[in-house]
Amino acid sequence: MSAPVTVKDLLSKPSAEIASFLGGIYEHSAWVAEALVKDAESLASIETISQLAAAMKAIVNKSSKDQKLELLCAHPDLCEKVGKLEMLTVESQEEQSRSGLQSLTDAELERFNSLNGAYRDQCGFPFILAVRNATKHTVLAALGGRVQHTPEQEFMVALEQVHKIAWMRLLSKIDTSDAQGFLTCHVLDTGNGCPAEKMRIHLHRLSPPEMAGLVGEFVTNDDGRLEGGPALKGGKEFTVGQYEWTFFCGEYFASKGTFTSGQPFLDTIPLRFGIDNPDDHYHVPLLVSPWSFSTYRGS
Amino acid sequence: MSAPVTVKDLLSKPSAEIASFLGGIYEHSAWVAEALVKDAESLASIETISQLAAAMKAIVNKSSKDQKLELLCAHPDLCEKVGKLEMLTVESQEEQSRSGLQSLTDAELERFNSLNGAYRDQCGFPFILAVRNATKHTVLAALGGRVQHTPEQEFMVALEQVHKIAWMRLLSKIDTSDAQGFLTCHVLDTGNGCPAEKMRIHLHRLSPPEMAGLVGEFVTNDDGRLEGGPALKGGKEFTVGQYEWTFFCGEYFASKGTFTSGQPFLDTIPLRFGIDNPDDHYHVPLLVSPWSFSTYRGS
Amino acid sequence: MSAPVTVKDLLSKPSAEIASFLGGIYEHSAWVAEALVKDAESLASIETISQLAAAMKAIVNKSSKDQKLELLCAHPDLCEKVGKLEMLTVESQEEQSRSGLQSLTDAELERFNSLNGAYRDQCGFPFILAVRNATKHTVLAALGGRVQHTPEQEFMVALEQVHKIAWMRLLSKIDTSDAQGFLTCHVLDTGNGCPAEKMRIHLHRLSPPEMAGLVGEFVTNDDGRLEGGPALKGGKEFTVGQYEWTFFCGEYFASKGTFTSGQPFLDTIPLRFGIDNPDDHYHVPLLVSPWSFSTYRGS
Amino acid sequence: MSAPVTVKDLLSKPSAEIASFLGGIYEHSAWVAEALVKDAESLASIETISQLAAAMKAIVNKSSKDQKLELLCAHPDLCEKVGKLEMLTVESQEEQSRSGLQSLTDAELERFNSLNGAYRDQCGFPFILAVRNATKHTVLAALGGRVQHTPEQEFMVALEQVHKIAWMRLLSKIDTSDAQGFLTCHVLDTGNGCPAEKMRIHLHRLSPPEMAGLVGEFVTNDDGRLEGGPALKGGKEFTVGQYEWTFFCGEYFASKGTFTSGQPFLDTIPLRFGIDNPDDHYHVPLLVSPWSFSTYRGS
Repeated sequence: MSAPVTVKDLLSKPSAEIASFLGGIYEHSAWVAEALVKDAESLASIETISQLAAAMKAIVNKSSKDQKLELLCAHPDLCEKVGKLEMLTVESQEEQSRSGLQSLTDAELERFNSLNGAYRDQCGFPFILAVRNATKHTVLAALGGRVQHTPEQEFMVALEQVHKIAWMRLLSKIDTSDAQGFLTCHVLDTGNGCPAEKMRIHLHRLSPPEMAGLVGEFVTNDDGRLEGGPALKGGKEFTVGQYEWTFFCGEYFASKGTFTSGQPFLDTIPLRFGIDNPDDHYHVPLLVSPWSFSTYRGS
Repeated sequence: MSAPVTVKDLLSKPSAEIASFLGGIYEHSAWVAEALVKDAESLASIETISQLAAAMKAIVNKSSKDQKLELLCAHPDLCEKVGKLEMLTVESQEEQSRSGLQSLTDAELERFNSLNGAYRDQCGFPFILAVRNATKHTVLAALGGRVQHTPEQEFMVALEQVHKIAWMRLLSKIDTSDAQGFLTCHVLDTGNGCPAEKMRIHLHRLSPPEMAGLVGEFVTNDDGRLEGGPALKGGKEFTVGQYEWTFFCGEYFASKGTFTSGQPFLDTIPLRFGIDNPDDHYHVPLLVSPWSFSTYRGS
Repeated sequence: MSAPVTVKDLLSKPSAEIASFLGGIYEHSAWVAEALVKDAESLASIETISQLAAAMKAIVNKSSKDQKLELLCAHPDLCEKVGKLEMLTVESQEEQSRSGLQSLTDAELERFNSLNGAYRDQCGFPFILAVRNATKHTVLAALGGRVQHTPEQEFMVALEQVHKIAWMRLLSKIDTSDAQGFLTCHVLDTGNGCPAEKMRIHLHRLSPPEMAGLVGEFVTNDDGRLEGGPALKGGKEFTVGQYEWTFFCGEYFASKGTFTSGQPFLDTIPLRFGIDNPDDHYHVPLLVSPWSFSTYRGS
Repeated sequence: MSAPVTVKDLLSKPSAEIASFLGGIYEHSAWVAEALVKDAESLASIETISQLAAAMKAIVNKSSKDQKLELLCAHPDLCEKVGKLEMLTVESQEEQSRSGLQSLTDAELERFNSLNGAYRDQCGFPFILAVRNATKHTVLAALGGRVQHTPEQEFMVALEQVHKIAWMRLLSKIDTSDAQGFLTCHVLDTGNGCPAEKMRIHLHRLSPPEMAGLVGEFVTNDDGRLEGGPALKGGKEFTVGQYEWTFFCGEYFASKGTFTSGQPFLDTIPLRFGIDNPDDHYHVPLLVSPWSFSTYRGS
């Protein structure tokens, strides 16, 4: 696999090179990358990996129903894995080996094969699942649920999976160290109706494994936000992966004299979340009383 | 310390023995236990540790303001720890050694002493904090916040702490293996407006350390509840301590074909909570969409 | 229009009569009802309006892509209304006249016509929207948003609208006074971590207009639920329409001595919701502190 | 009653006049206002009604336990109303007449008198409730709940009520047209994980009655916030009272093609809330999916 380049560097290259670099993003469908480079005006307006992904996605979405079907059918069958990996594109091989399908028991494998066959029969295209970190449980759950959909529903869901695979492939080929996304937090005390001031918060990165560890220790200011701005900022630190806040709520409520039980219902609260797009603002707040909490993907 | 007995066994003993057994529950205030055993009718109606605690608490709450003040003042000063531990009741010694005050830096110790002195001066009683698993952060946060309260507020907050300490002492002296509490769960899919069916859930006990580990693996039924009833039931398994659900939401949404990002915003969701009362029903549900979740102490 | 009959009464009639009665449920597509009555075994297992709707929906979903497209195309264009209403089935006429399209300004009408034309061009079928109580704002918002979808997405969304129209038509032709659905409530005090006891609650029906008014006054019991069971129960009172709880939270928090501001942030809380299925259990709870609340469609 | 003046104008007057103007803010306790004007330095730092209220509250909080008790006892007994109104300060008379106590039935009056007597006996001071817009339900609920507290709890709760009464009196005597508070909104679509764009929102003022009516029509921008900034801004429009957002969620979800039921579970959502402080920023957001919503007092 060629070394990652930034979007800016990539787009400064000759069209043929760009098309070649992006040719495998959509499985066996180099026509997407080729259409992209032909539209010079559109290409010139692309500055970020999100915009690049969106432009390629738009090309697929505007293609005919038949082209879309062909694209779906170009994907390897998750089932045909043992001894046949050499047929896949390099990207597909990696993804399949990560999906934990190897560890299926015989009974699970039989169930998988049976569902997978039924799916293909009724839909007319292979079962496609974007498989980053997927376990066999995910694959079997997805297959078991989606086989009950109508073919028209699955046409749409499968296409979404294809776009998601394309996005994950882009992320692995593009250097996003110049991206501008960032992570913020906010803690509201819904028991007392005010921002939670002076709450300690830790942030750990859980994945990818080689980057895992504590990445920040924070204290909220009088508006319940992190002193010093975003917790993570810019492509070098705001990386795609899984993260976890730890909110020290027990300490906070003790400082207010708010009643909590001896073994508090809520004490240190872990809040695990994923970052998928290095260009975006992720606002991941906590609304908390001693007896309830909630969070959401904010902006 | 005498071996734990059940509430039933304790209350079948002679009054003097009961009073002696419970004499240390409220610090240096054997009069609470003595008043309890004098009221034979009330005593006869007690069947659970919660009722026992409530009866003792009611005696304190009905006592005069002066008696309450004396009770508060009977508590050791958190500050006078080094070399003076022999003055405390056995229970207090254990609690203080667990509070991590030993690890204060010099600067923290100075801050602690200064706040602690100010607190006692303005309130007229020592700073009291129920300290199970408290760290120095909790102690300093609590002291720093509560020193800003009026003495009247703190009189109330301190009394709550005293009741909490009494409860924790009862828990360590009473065998609750015959208690009737239980733990239930419910998962609602707020993205699709239905119970979340066939979601896998794990339950781990995090504390006390000697009982830590996986205590159950579950799957939700078509009403979003655990197949097979409560996750924990009765005093032998529904024990006071800290717990953590793990909800496999990523798998669940994959089975519905619901759109999630490549690195899902929510995938496996840990939900940490404490159980404080072995007699109670704890309902700890999850309301979840791919982009938000919430929980609360239900009933 | 023939008088409503119960599902039980309808299904006891001769096949031809059933097929005739249900012939207009799916627009100009009597084949759905005809297929239904041909499957005697399936028909025999139907007891409720939900099951009847599901059986007809399954017939459509299992039909070929071409049949589905024909079904979509059988729907009148929302645009061709003036002077052409006589072409529609009776049901469509009623629905169109309710949609408030008559009140469009010239500019709105132009925008509507332009979007509507674009939609048909790119999708190959008319824009379909289930229009109960829809205003021109709803129609224009829906058209403006959905015209940006791919044809494959819209194929699915349009089919969902068709099923929704079928459901609304069934509701108007079937007497559901024997249905078994019911409405429950639960109030949790997330500020104090307990069920909200003795909270007063009113329930008003807002629609249909001829049934509007106060339908119940309740008080919560010690588990935060309504004394006396469901608020509405059975097809005669648990009717399809819009409802509103009024929770007297200000009173409740005053009774607890919980701090609220002079003009409380939350005092009487109106909570408006719709009931769409007379067979279902609707659980519509309130989680509330003096500074936050939430609700959801529970079960 | 003298005409309202702004804080700035008030504080530019001679001390004696200020003390006289504020003498009745704390019931029969002119000493609070007198202490205020004696502290010239503190007085000079006051610029807003919030700061004025906070300064007077601090004087009360720092006073001795006996002074506080005297202040509590200076309040009229809610019970002694008929024929004795002439004893109250002017402010108390107005408040009592607004509390709806006149409409008690005989049975309610008996219950009220009995609880009220018990309260005074056990607490040693009259039952105090800040009664803006309170109904007899609120008064009876508050009395019935609080009579079960310990005297020490009630000492605190009663003092909070006294501060709240003082705040409401300040609001009626001070012209806050120069205050800087404002109201903002934010709508997040938790079903789709994004800001809710182009949602229509109305804002009505519900009280005071003479100002009631529609005060704004808004549309959200691409970040889910109101186009054009705060919905209300500054003391002339951001007035103390009760308000109601109306969110047109049905339209919004129709524009996204998100599935909702025929009679949507959530369509137009009313969200009623109170503004108590003309100096504050009130952020009152909506988190919404087609099947759940929540809100909170944000900042």
